[in-house]
Amino acid sequence: MDTSKKIAVILSGCGVYDGAEIHESVLTMLAIAKHGASYTLFAPDINQHHVINHITGEEMKENRNVLTEAARIARGAIQPLSDFNINEFDALMLPGGFGAAKNLSSLAFDGPDCDVEPLTAKAIQDTHKAEKPIGALCIAPAVLAKVINNINVTIGQDKGTIEAIEKMGSKHTLSNHGEVTIDKENKIATTPCYMLDANILQIEEGANNVVKAVLDMI
Amino acid sequence: MDTSKKIAVILSGCGVYDGAEIHESVLTMLAIAKHGASYTLFAPDINQHHVINHITGEEMKENRNVLTEAARIARGAIQPLSDFNINEFDALMLPGGFGAAKNLSSLAFDGPDCDVEPLTAKAIQDTHKAEKPIGALCIAPAVLAKVINNINVTIGQDKGTIEAIEKMGSKHTLSNHGEVTIDKENKIATTPCYMLDANILQIEEGANNVVKAVLDMI
Repeated sequence: MDTSKKIAVILSGCGVYDGAEIHESVLTMLAIAKHGASYTLFAPDINQHHVINHITGEEMKENRNVLTEAARIARGAIQPLSDFNINEFDALMLPGGFGAAKNLSSLAFDGPDCDVEPLTAKAIQDTHKAEKPIGALCIAPAVLAKVINNINVTIGQDKGTIEAIEKMGSKHTLSNHGEVTIDKENKIATTPCYMLDANILQIEEGANNVVKAVLDMI
Repeated sequence: MDTSKKIAVILSGCGVYDGAEIHESVLTMLAIAKHGASYTLFAPDINQHHVINHITGEEMKENRNVLTEAARIARGAIQPLSDFNINEFDALMLPGGFGAAKNLSSLAFDGPDCDVEPLTAKAIQDTHKAEKPIGALCIAPAVLAKVINNINVTIGQDKGTIEAIEKMGSKHTLSNHGEVTIDKENKIATTPCYMLDANILQIEEGANNVVKAVLDMI
């Protein structure tokens, strides 16, 4: 147990289809606590790209804010990403969900030509420059590949996303449930989670393994 | 491992202050899966009492639907509570969050004189009449106390809620983190979770213990 290890976690809303994947977010928080580290949650104070009805898959005529919705997962204990300072943390983690590809970046719409939300890009760059580890789950590794050049990540086995990662100048390693791809040189650990057809036990395993890999690189 | 045990779980929205507590919901689902049982998620197709900004605690001028929002926790795999049939399940569970006291009942506003949402009351009554176990977390045990007479539950140590439970004709047992109060005669297992000042590890422990107690009574 090392309670001195402090992890910043960036959430992208609240709900798999338009925000942060809830199981991945909660089980990342749980895994960090289980390993004796602490987490501080952040989200950008921006509008969501859109709001999706999670039963029908249809767009709803609503506007929601990424930080305000992410606060649901955080039980209110969350900070605007503008307050993030890498000097206060030992590592950065990004759970998945379409929020990573719709709010933290435009990956879902623009593929390898996507933009990354500026504060998210800065947090990733600052962490990388400080030579501190970054962990990412599900689709979030593709956001890392857009911000940092020539890294090795996994998002599982999805061909379209793998092509995008390669076009952005990085390497993709195929993976299965719970497996973690570790890029030691760049201190990046990634795991596929719900990018595969997974159940909640497999998400817990993936979250545990990627958190452990991140903590081991601190 | 007994994969034949089927648990119905009623969610009350998505977010502690106006819906289902997210950690309790996810960790109940995880605990059910860990014990080799399966879960089916339900929520009533009704409007939330209100929408709370989880950062400021203030009410937002929005309308949200309990079933639609709960679907975020469920990744879309959720059914309207009108479809619930106790013959298809071995047990019923209710995670907490203010949704239990604002959407599934009016407990947060009316205390012991509260109403319980009709389909929620029917699901609890049907399960009790079928002599199948019911598990509840956090504030949800107080909803059970309104629907079923003369039971023994715990919500932790909150004096106001304990008084309400006693006025509704039931017994309250004080409890601490992770502890489960089991009413064997009525097949009811309850645990305090975030009704205490708890961390996510303590929620996992409470969810695990109450799920185990419910499965043991099947």
